[in-house]
Amino acid sequence: MKALTLHGVEDVRIETVPDPSLIDPTDVIVKVTLAAICGSDLHLYHGAIPGLLPGTVIGHEYVGEVVEVGAQVRRFRPGDRVVGSFHVACGTCPACLRRDFNVCVNGGTFGYGLGFGNLDGTQAQYARIPYADTVLRHLPAGLSDEKALFCGDILTTAYGAVVNSSLQPGETVAVVGCGPVGIMAVQAALALGAGRVLAIDLVPERTALAERLGAIPIDSSKRNPVSMVNQLTGGEGADVVIEAVGGTRTLALAFDLVRGGGRVSAVGITAEESFAYPLNIALVKDITFRIGVANIPRHMDATLALVAGGRIDPTVVVSHRLALEEAPLGYKLFAERKASKVLLLPHV
Amino acid sequence: MKALTLHGVEDVRIETVPDPSLIDPTDVIVKVTLAAICGSDLHLYHGAIPGLLPGTVIGHEYVGEVVEVGAQVRRFRPGDRVVGSFHVACGTCPACLRRDFNVCVNGGTFGYGLGFGNLDGTQAQYARIPYADTVLRHLPAGLSDEKALFCGDILTTAYGAVVNSSLQPGETVAVVGCGPVGIMAVQAALALGAGRVLAIDLVPERTALAERLGAIPIDSSKRNPVSMVNQLTGGEGADVVIEAVGGTRTLALAFDLVRGGGRVSAVGITAEESFAYPLNIALVKDITFRIGVANIPRHMDATLALVAGGRIDPTVVVSHRLALEEAPLGYKLFAERKASKVLLLPHV
Amino acid sequence: MKALTLHGVEDVRIETVPDPSLIDPTDVIVKVTLAAICGSDLHLYHGAIPGLLPGTVIGHEYVGEVVEVGAQVRRFRPGDRVVGSFHVACGTCPACLRRDFNVCVNGGTFGYGLGFGNLDGTQAQYARIPYADTVLRHLPAGLSDEKALFCGDILTTAYGAVVNSSLQPGETVAVVGCGPVGIMAVQAALALGAGRVLAIDLVPERTALAERLGAIPIDSSKRNPVSMVNQLTGGEGADVVIEAVGGTRTLALAFDLVRGGGRVSAVGITAEESFAYPLNIALVKDITFRIGVANIPRHMDATLALVAGGRIDPTVVVSHRLALEEAPLGYKLFAERKASKVLLLPHV
Amino acid sequence: MKALTLHGVEDVRIETVPDPSLIDPTDVIVKVTLAAICGSDLHLYHGAIPGLLPGTVIGHEYVGEVVEVGAQVRRFRPGDRVVGSFHVACGTCPACLRRDFNVCVNGGTFGYGLGFGNLDGTQAQYARIPYADTVLRHLPAGLSDEKALFCGDILTTAYGAVVNSSLQPGETVAVVGCGPVGIMAVQAALALGAGRVLAIDLVPERTALAERLGAIPIDSSKRNPVSMVNQLTGGEGADVVIEAVGGTRTLALAFDLVRGGGRVSAVGITAEESFAYPLNIALVKDITFRIGVANIPRHMDATLALVAGGRIDPTVVVSHRLALEEAPLGYKLFAERKASKVLLLPHV
Repeated sequence: MKALTLHGVEDVRIETVPDPSLIDPTDVIVKVTLAAICGSDLHLYHGAIPGLLPGTVIGHEYVGEVVEVGAQVRRFRPGDRVVGSFHVACGTCPACLRRDFNVCVNGGTFGYGLGFGNLDGTQAQYARIPYADTVLRHLPAGLSDEKALFCGDILTTAYGAVVNSSLQPGETVAVVGCGPVGIMAVQAALALGAGRVLAIDLVPERTALAERLGAIPIDSSKRNPVSMVNQLTGGEGADVVIEAVGGTRTLALAFDLVRGGGRVSAVGITAEESFAYPLNIALVKDITFRIGVANIPRHMDATLALVAGGRIDPTVVVSHRLALEEAPLGYKLFAERKASKVLLLPHV
Repeated sequence: MKALTLHGVEDVRIETVPDPSLIDPTDVIVKVTLAAICGSDLHLYHGAIPGLLPGTVIGHEYVGEVVEVGAQVRRFRPGDRVVGSFHVACGTCPACLRRDFNVCVNGGTFGYGLGFGNLDGTQAQYARIPYADTVLRHLPAGLSDEKALFCGDILTTAYGAVVNSSLQPGETVAVVGCGPVGIMAVQAALALGAGRVLAIDLVPERTALAERLGAIPIDSSKRNPVSMVNQLTGGEGADVVIEAVGGTRTLALAFDLVRGGGRVSAVGITAEESFAYPLNIALVKDITFRIGVANIPRHMDATLALVAGGRIDPTVVVSHRLALEEAPLGYKLFAERKASKVLLLPHV
Repeated sequence: MKALTLHGVEDVRIETVPDPSLIDPTDVIVKVTLAAICGSDLHLYHGAIPGLLPGTVIGHEYVGEVVEVGAQVRRFRPGDRVVGSFHVACGTCPACLRRDFNVCVNGGTFGYGLGFGNLDGTQAQYARIPYADTVLRHLPAGLSDEKALFCGDILTTAYGAVVNSSLQPGETVAVVGCGPVGIMAVQAALALGAGRVLAIDLVPERTALAERLGAIPIDSSKRNPVSMVNQLTGGEGADVVIEAVGGTRTLALAFDLVRGGGRVSAVGITAEESFAYPLNIALVKDITFRIGVANIPRHMDATLALVAGGRIDPTVVVSHRLALEEAPLGYKLFAERKASKVLLLPHV
Repeated sequence: MKALTLHGVEDVRIETVPDPSLIDPTDVIVKVTLAAICGSDLHLYHGAIPGLLPGTVIGHEYVGEVVEVGAQVRRFRPGDRVVGSFHVACGTCPACLRRDFNVCVNGGTFGYGLGFGNLDGTQAQYARIPYADTVLRHLPAGLSDEKALFCGDILTTAYGAVVNSSLQPGETVAVVGCGPVGIMAVQAALALGAGRVLAIDLVPERTALAERLGAIPIDSSKRNPVSMVNQLTGGEGADVVIEAVGGTRTLALAFDLVRGGGRVSAVGITAEESFAYPLNIALVKDITFRIGVANIPRHMDATLALVAGGRIDPTVVVSHRLALEEAPLGYKLFAERKASKVLLLPHV
């Protein structure tokens, strides 16, 4: 089959590799009908993630059709249209039994190398999906591949961050960063009952998109976001801040934006080892802080229902639809910020 | 001042009555800038509520401006624009301290007679508001009287029914009855994370309005709503049913519409003393049922924030805007179902 | 193997029947090391449940050791000590995916006849357990068979009723009926944060046991429980009422005992088709009501942890420990109310 | 009246000072019948808190009797027995209306100097209590002064930390530090449904007390607490960690003790400005972290109910009961760790 493989820094290629086959009885083989390039794939592209052998198939966002199922697979049959979580979880360890699928002891991420379960990626014509009963979902009738795809990764990641913030109806949510994940957070916050979403970014096109989706834009290249948020909230600050950038500076900003008794939920993944947690501020303001990798299998049914019901349209961030063969171009455009979201069609 | 008074069955009049004055130190006097006729006012109009002396000022929906405050009032000053709860609550009894304001031992409803605290109504130029600190809210800056008014009664009533249903994001909500309260429930369910709202009514105009607001219409004059809901939910039934009619037949329908493990939340007020609760169905399906008068002060801040943020527009149900002098005509139209919601302007 | 079989009204026998064997790949075979007679087995004993062929093995409370596993069983191996839910659930239908295991479309109850999945019972030396991954749990290290057994049925049933009541810390819980299930409810309410538990029963020995466990006893043979509860709660009523009898009279009592804004959670199973739900009371008091079959797989991990941690001791209700051969005597004593809880040892 | 005054480092004196009198209409004057020395009073004693004029009356734990009420006080009358929150909150600012009383814009702490509202302390025969309706509670009938006192400070502080941890029934809670606050956390965790509490301290007497209260003791002077907790939890870590010491080392330990998906709730107050938040660990483990000053008025009703119901006995930490005149000795013993909790009687 054809697949996108990583060979070095900024060196991705379309190659012919062996078709995947069932290994464990909980596996299924999926014919990938749609894949996508995620922001976290850029870390691989830039060589920031150790543990990838040259030629590794990468990618972890996908929708497809089941073509083969292992002997212990109970929920899926060949022909089923499915969307899958970017990370896998066994479904039977103590963490999974608690539904903490993101800390599964047998977990892993597709196409992320030896440190993440050594699983081949999904930017390919076919993929082997371990623990299918736990990590796959049927597509609701009538739902397009494009809309479903986001439920396996960035929409559900952002949604989980909003859920983790214990958002109460009518509250004001500030979203720091309006890239694709931030845009998902804007939509998730609105769908989950936010009274207002304040969308903060340095790039006017990004805040403009957030505004079209119902947010109040704050262009932080021109205005101090802290003073803007204070002004809009009577000096109190936001009830909830969703950090969707991934950096210690934006984390620190989040603590300045949040009101007393508020919550900071960080969805941006940062490579920093630690962060100077502002104890003096947090003590006085009584802040709840959460950061962690997403728990897709836990929240995926809800995001699929919200997308299927038309409450959230994740495809607003899509800028490019390319054949899988053109994926190297897609990576280049994405890395150069000339693409906001690149979808890949493996079978055209 | 001028006020609407009830004199007998279908006999309401505009009369000049004494201006209200402060009685208790927790009172304020409000100049009513907007009032409205509620569905429950029709019970008075039709003579169904005992305990109203002839000449009682009725009405309980209102927005206004504070003109005088009692000595123990801490949150309001003359000139403040306010919206108030249709029912009052003292704020200091054990129920109020638990925020169960709807079961306050000192509670009452404006303009509902001796059985409800003997409080003059708000379809008048001025009104005395007891326990102002507990039952009034400041209008968010820029919010119109019309949008705010609904937060003191039917929007918050419907919103509370949705909150009481423990709605989970992405769930399917069936709303039985799309009169003004049902339309509020449709909007509240969507704002609070419903994946889909199935709006059921016999009147096509009502379901059409629900559809414009984002619901899936079910015309129960033409289709069996149980089979429609089952069809739309893969045979399971709705996760949540909001009963917004108020009758034992629609209550029974709700139990047929709800899925196993689901919740029935009734917002329609019924005069029946009891209801044949279907234990056999409920046992097998594990249903949670809640019916009760609304708890406006508990939920009003959230609805005000949702309306101020543009997430809900309650004015979609308004059909008539009349001067207070024309209120008797308003009652007539409303009783004849020629008006869906009548607003009254006491100072034009 | 030896097993208890039902042949007619009050006719139970120990017979030799064929050993069970695996049928579906999700089955396991358990060697039953401890079984028990449940109050709901008495319905069978008295002939109140249709659909049992003569000679049916009955019983549904059990602890045991896995001796054989089907090909799709992932969590269990021969030799594992396990406790099982009294009802089964497939784990893959929409209801199960929502964790509404008690309304599983493939569900059933052991030893309850054709209307309940036609599953052989567990008052036997061996039992076939369908959907083992969903309905079995490993015993925590060091936990005795006796303590674990209750987690598969009456303790978790009562615990679920308390959880379903949305009990808040410090609240006052009234438990109506202090039979074995009521005693479990008393302990569960205390473990989950009740400030006080008011234990109501006509039988002084039962309220005395509740008192030893920390409850305040109310002997309803001597005192009016409504006036007693009102006196103890400053005239308000109980925050939560757990109905643990199963009858429309005790249900009606629950509505008299509960305070405004409170919750009635019914755990007693009643055969009545309907109940005259007191709409007038419920409307004024804003009551939440829940009745339904228990959801054991959902709550079993928590009850096992509470029992293993010594927070709850369900064995306080045990009156008799008999060899399986003596089970007919056990039924007789239990039916005559000379036994409060009968445990059965199938391999002594 | 007599009162304890602070004059410098380790210089506290009993002096005669003017009786307090009503200043604002929301004030009451309380005759203090019992006061206590809190761990945070030692910060004053050691001169670590700036902004205290010489001669300031200190102390903030108290129970008493209302002797005079301001004109806007609605809930209290002379003669009422009351316990009060250590901090005050106005009840009418936006934070208070959200019940975030700990971030009230008009807040303050008794006897903590100019930076905390400049309020005289309660280690005195009388005290002025601002915002009485918000910060005082009636003592439940029959509750002793000693048991109630803790509800105004350390019990409710610890309880709040447990509530903030979103503890689920049956979970394992590790409490780091078994001083008075830690002992309160042990009891609160057990009362709120913990399956097990693992009590960690370097001082054997402290863990021994925790053990008597139902916890599993871990003597961290002899055993590595991380390996002990891992051993007791099958290698997973604690579901919840309550940090009750107040230091960055114990905070860091908390992140090592908590399981993936777990929660760290810090109740110990630290003076450090920041803390090296372990992003790498938190990202992988998906940890929720909360630190903040306690919200006593929010949680005080629940702790009073739990203490009145006999579910928690906070007096187990009391080592000394002294007349107010002996308070300087009490401070000395407490500072030298020869007293675990010193109660002061102002009127003997």
